[in-house]
Amino acid sequence: MDIRAVLRVLGVLLIFVGASLIFPIAISLYYKDGDFTALLASFLITITAGGLLWKFTPGDRELKTREGFAVVTFGWIFLSAFGSLPYLFTNFEISFTDAFFETMSGFTTTGATILTDVEALPHGVLFWRSLTHWLGGMGIIVMSLAILPMLGIGGMQLFKAEVPGPSVDKLQPRIQDTAKILWGVYVLLTCIETLLLKLGGMNIFDSLCHTFGTVATGGFSTKNAGIGFYQSAYIEYVITVFMILAGTNFALHYRVLKGRFKSYRENTEFRFYFGIILFVTTFVFLDLLFRRLYGFSGAFQKAIFQVTSLMTTTGYHSADYEAWPVSSQLILIILMFFGGCAGSTSGGIKVVRIYLIIKYGFMQFKKLLHPHAVIPIRLGHRPVPPEAISDILGYVVLYFSILVVSSILMSLMGLDLVTSVSTVISSLSNIGPGVGTIGPTENFAHIPAIGKWLLSFLMLVGRLEIYTVLVIFTRNFWIK
Amino acid sequence: MDIRAVLRVLGVLLIFVGASLIFPIAISLYYKDGDFTALLASFLITITAGGLLWKFTPGDRELKTREGFAVVTFGWIFLSAFGSLPYLFTNFEISFTDAFFETMSGFTTTGATILTDVEALPHGVLFWRSLTHWLGGMGIIVMSLAILPMLGIGGMQLFKAEVPGPSVDKLQPRIQDTAKILWGVYVLLTCIETLLLKLGGMNIFDSLCHTFGTVATGGFSTKNAGIGFYQSAYIEYVITVFMILAGTNFALHYRVLKGRFKSYRENTEFRFYFGIILFVTTFVFLDLLFRRLYGFSGAFQKAIFQVTSLMTTTGYHSADYEAWPVSSQLILIILMFFGGCAGSTSGGIKVVRIYLIIKYGFMQFKKLLHPHAVIPIRLGHRPVPPEAISDILGYVVLYFSILVVSSILMSLMGLDLVTSVSTVISSLSNIGPGVGTIGPTENFAHIPAIGKWLLSFLMLVGRLEIYTVLVIFTRNFWIK
Repeated sequence: MDIRAVLRVLGVLLIFVGASLIFPIAISLYYKDGDFTALLASFLITITAGGLLWKFTPGDRELKTREGFAVVTFGWIFLSAFGSLPYLFTNFEISFTDAFFETMSGFTTTGATILTDVEALPHGVLFWRSLTHWLGGMGIIVMSLAILPMLGIGGMQLFKAEVPGPSVDKLQPRIQDTAKILWGVYVLLTCIETLLLKLGGMNIFDSLCHTFGTVATGGFSTKNAGIGFYQSAYIEYVITVFMILAGTNFALHYRVLKGRFKSYRENTEFRFYFGIILFVTTFVFLDLLFRRLYGFSGAFQKAIFQVTSLMTTTGYHSADYEAWPVSSQLILIILMFFGGCAGSTSGGIKVVRIYLIIKYGFMQFKKLLHPHAVIPIRLGHRPVPPEAISDILGYVVLYFSILVVSSILMSLMGLDLVTSVSTVISSLSNIGPGVGTIGPTENFAHIPAIGKWLLSFLMLVGRLEIYTVLVIFTRNFWIK
Repeated sequence: MDIRAVLRVLGVLLIFVGASLIFPIAISLYYKDGDFTALLASFLITITAGGLLWKFTPGDRELKTREGFAVVTFGWIFLSAFGSLPYLFTNFEISFTDAFFETMSGFTTTGATILTDVEALPHGVLFWRSLTHWLGGMGIIVMSLAILPMLGIGGMQLFKAEVPGPSVDKLQPRIQDTAKILWGVYVLLTCIETLLLKLGGMNIFDSLCHTFGTVATGGFSTKNAGIGFYQSAYIEYVITVFMILAGTNFALHYRVLKGRFKSYRENTEFRFYFGIILFVTTFVFLDLLFRRLYGFSGAFQKAIFQVTSLMTTTGYHSADYEAWPVSSQLILIILMFFGGCAGSTSGGIKVVRIYLIIKYGFMQFKKLLHPHAVIPIRLGHRPVPPEAISDILGYVVLYFSILVVSSILMSLMGLDLVTSVSTVISSLSNIGPGVGTIGPTENFAHIPAIGKWLLSFLMLVGRLEIYTVLVIFTRNFWIK
């Protein structure tokens, strides 16, 4: 393990994220609501720390797989530690636990909050909060489309073929190319959504913040009532569309922008993803309509918004879905496991894995009646190698093992049954709200400190596709 | 599909089960509490139906795999339909839905009941109720050790090596040999436990009924308060020991009886099974002790009894575990998925599958750091072929898919969140009680009729290792 090479990259990341504090500082200068000093101090400390790391580490080392894991995991932890400074400096009553939880929730695009009243925050800090989503989303896109496929994590190598991805021998220039292309798409989506929300009557500040929360599938809002605050069908539908786009493989968007308009329709994962959204929306819509909770158009609007929000692991809410029928709640909880497409900013298990697992289940059936038949599993036209299927099944096993153990740990802290499980699902799938005492109208403030640390860890584990983090805990990782 | 050959076997099964009604009839003659005519009528109808099926079907056909599936699935359904006659004939207010549910729950050794007051039942019917467990357990032992391994269901072929099992070419004589050996063990366990319970102060009737419920890992009791009725540490410990034995591969008992005393210790699955019981018992024991719910010895007694009961999918209760700490409840719920060893009478996913899946998870980790290493998974000293691991993973995927879909269906019937999921886990793992409104002190009477049919179906699906039932619904199964 070349620790000094890892530290150098972490230094660069700190400088980059520290520099991005310029934007909240500008906001605080405009609104003048008292967080200028706090943000400036955070900016200087972060930049300085990054600069020192960069200055005192050697520059000519090449990163190998092992160091790649370390950069990704420790990168998110370092950034969350420094990123919590603005919270700590503006409000001396907030604990480091809470500030770290909030920042980790931001950078992992989870959107779980410990704040009971977000509207009380000064504008600069509030902007920083949403910006952590946007920066985190940026990191995830590169990570999931350029770095993870090389590491062969949980079947991620499958998705490589979908993108103009890097080859292992010439890593860094290709990562840079891929990153530029995808970030271009990301910035474009951000601009368009901000504009559309502004046209819908949101002010520019809220438009930007809600856009950051959408395109990163994060879920932080600047309003206590979330998107429900606006009481606007237009705003809900705009956000719904952009949540769907944010839950889609960004490489597909790139292709469409390049003129290959059929790309969405040709992509198996996207078709399955969109099909699930439509199917579950129909189910929830009929459920809401049948129980007369909303009128016809209201039921559809609320249904598609909430289904998309939870499936893409954004976590915005426009209604208190805990007051919805149990059947709708249950199907929403199940969606929380799914997540969006691989190569998107969303968390969860990812649609392509779910798709292949279902295909695998059917294949097992056929094998029962024709024991000697060799039945290949296909993703689109390409047959999927059995090892990739094994990797995916292993991934899901690990996902549920972590869920089980963590839920028991949460329950030991005195939480009720539903909340114990729900906090873990919400964190591991990077959603934000859940059910129980962390429903859409509630928050994570009441979770014990030790629980917040566990959940922060789970956000990281979920965000980095599990293995990336857990491998750090193996002995083999450190020796040699 | 040779339907007539299948019907012939079903006829034989009906005659066999019909004949076993002799025992409840004898009981009713002794207690004279009014169910003699009902039982006699059930006896005559069942025997006659079986005899007619047998008489009008050809006798020289050989069963193939396909017919094997059909015999097992339709066998359980036929027997449950005819086995519900005693309930219907003694109480004309009971619906066929309820009677069928109760009988399916008996034959699948689930132990879920729709009766709000079991003590009100006449002795003959009550005996029949427990006897369905015992007969069902007998069927399961043969099925899981002699029939399923041949069909290669969900990795079952693995366990073949553990038993003096049949080879495919000379099927029927070997099944008969295996069956005789295992039934001998089963009868022996039954005799010893009955004797021990009798010595503990139970009358012979209750001793027999509770023994049937134990060795079949069923869970029907003759008392409304279950085993808690007796307020006896001796009785709880006797039942605990026999639940552990009933959740063990019966082929192991046979070997031990043959003088190979090390067999338990040498068996990987048994060690893991016993280890889990001890580990979880310790957890629950400390949890109960720490919250001061019981004294030292009481906490241990209640903990090991309940842990064993739910892990082996028996479902007896000696305390209301829904009043226990959430952490203990959660770990008990997780145990409900596990089940006992393969080749035992218990339901659930089975310990050996859980064991191999955990090993598989670890293997995936090692592969991450050493991508080109070939790391075999071993069960004891034998390496497990990758296809068997795939089969097991496929089995678990199917198990959870059924769980998810069925839970949504249950929630549509107006049940609460916890009960919707809990009824499905309980039925699919053949346990009996669960949490929510079907806790240990409650019953299934309030579940809507359509829900009872779904749960009956799930009991069957879980009991017959899923594939055996579901394959019937494929088109390929019927053609040719």
